Amino acid sequence: MTWQFDAETAVESRGDGLWTTRLSDRWNIGDNPNGGYLVAVTLQALRQLGPHPHPVSVTSHFLRPGTGDAPGEVRTSLVRSGRSVTTARATLVQEGRERLEVLASFGDLSGSTGHSHELVIDPPDMPPPEDCAERSGLEQGVELHIQSRIDMRVRPDLSSAGSGERAETLGWIRFRDGRDPDSLGAVLFADAFPPPIFGLLGRVGWVPTIELTVHVRRRPAPGWMLGRFMTDDLHDGRMIEDGWLWDSSGAMVARSRQLAILLED
Amino acid sequence: MTWQFDAETAVESRGDGLWTTRLSDRWNIGDNPNGGYLVAVTLQALRQLGPHPHPVSVTSHFLRPGTGDAPGEVRTSLVRSGRSVTTARATLVQEGRERLEVLASFGDLSGSTGHSHELVIDPPDMPPPEDCAERSGLEQGVELHIQSRIDMRVRPDLSSAGSGERAETLGWIRFRDGRDPDSLGAVLFADAFPPPIFGLLGRVGWVPTIELTVHVRRRPAPGWMLGRFMTDDLHDGRMIEDGWLWDSSGAMVARSRQLAILLED
Repeated sequence: MTWQFDAETAVESRGDGLWTTRLSDRWNIGDNPNGGYLVAVTLQALRQLGPHPHPVSVTSHFLRPGTGDAPGEVRTSLVRSGRSVTTARATLVQEGRERLEVLASFGDLSGSTGHSHELVIDPPDMPPPEDCAERSGLEQGVELHIQSRIDMRVRPDLSSAGSGERAETLGWIRFRDGRDPDSLGAVLFADAFPPPIFGLLGRVGWVPTIELTVHVRRRPAPGWMLGRFMTDDLHDGRMIEDGWLWDSSGAMVARSRQLAILLED
Repeated sequence: MTWQFDAETAVESRGDGLWTTRLSDRWNIGDNPNGGYLVAVTLQALRQLGPHPHPVSVTSHFLRPGTGDAPGEVRTSLVRSGRSVTTARATLVQEGRERLEVLASFGDLSGSTGHSHELVIDPPDMPPPEDCAERSGLEQGVELHIQSRIDMRVRPDLSSAGSGERAETLGWIRFRDGRDPDSLGAVLFADAFPPPIFGLLGRVGWVPTIELTVHVRRRPAPGWMLGRFMTDDLHDGRMIEDGWLWDSSGAMVARSRQLAILLED
């Protein structure tokens, strides 16, 4: 069986670091593909450039919206492949225009380096997925094609919550077709939740991301992942959103931070 | 008067995106230049590629240590220059080897977009600089040439503190020669403090940074800046360090996050 995520992020090598793909529109939020989906497509190419299979640091600058149900090119180049880290960059191009610029480092999260010191961020308390709300209720007027691919359950009392000091969202997330999460899926999930700022300010129009960095800390266990997304830093229409993702065993899998703009007041 | 920072990060255009520089060894920590100093050199070139003067998001991947008191090249290319954001990348090369790869977006932090919503992170309580300790006391055995360029005062009770759950450093920072901080200085300062993990685990050898992202949120007011640096996420020898920098008026100026490796247990 081919999972939807793997089929719809697949890339084909054309040599010299050029890869071709066909973006799906099934990951669209409104008229354009979700940003995390675009990043995942570039990672499918980038992870083949060196011996290290797992993205550990992925920075993406969103230049223009992508287009679903349309072809795309991923132009990659290896920056450095060392003993424990491979660094590479990619540009996603559609119709001759750059959509996304990515700089990423890859490592191997399978083994153990033997370090015993641990500092652990525990997951927040959360009711089970059955007691949470589907994402659909949050964004009236925007067609969430991505719901055909991602199953998301948001904690009801935080889905539109926020104090004067922060805006926060908690939710469960998994692939709709039952695919287990992995390091690429963790990067995708880090950009799949609705911006928590909506809960504080109401739906404030489009909140385009300038830049998103995701750090993958572990390979996730199978099952639901739990996401916490929070904004406590908004100034002059620019905001920072932080994210944390835990797997079903309660282990931290990924961290995210993005710089985004509020387009309307 | 030419300030030390400006003189020692200066770059000269050779056309076609190539810039030459001479790295100083006055920003060394031990035998190699501080990473933030290397980033600042690339930003001196990158900020000239578009109309937007201030770095708002700067991601740096540290490929190999730099060499002080030696020439260097900065190879830049413009990714996109839009209405409000310019995105560009740079590679710092010395002796034919890539040392640093940078992907950055620039904006204009001078004006106002008219957005009135604010979410504010207040600075922590901190004794005045006179009651704090110079950095020198923290790192025996490593020559801190950077102290000739940066004046840093660390809160004594946190300089080697840390609970079982986190490691934290608080400190004042400014240019030694009296230069006022600016957006480039904020990026430098975000990578100038000793890793707080030293306070928790003792001096655990070199803690090389894989990747550092700095977001500049405001132009700083003149005077001391206050930094808070914290690690609460360490797994399998890889750690995340978060940073916050406030200016002398108490306004948040920059946020930082880095992925680093503990080389010794």
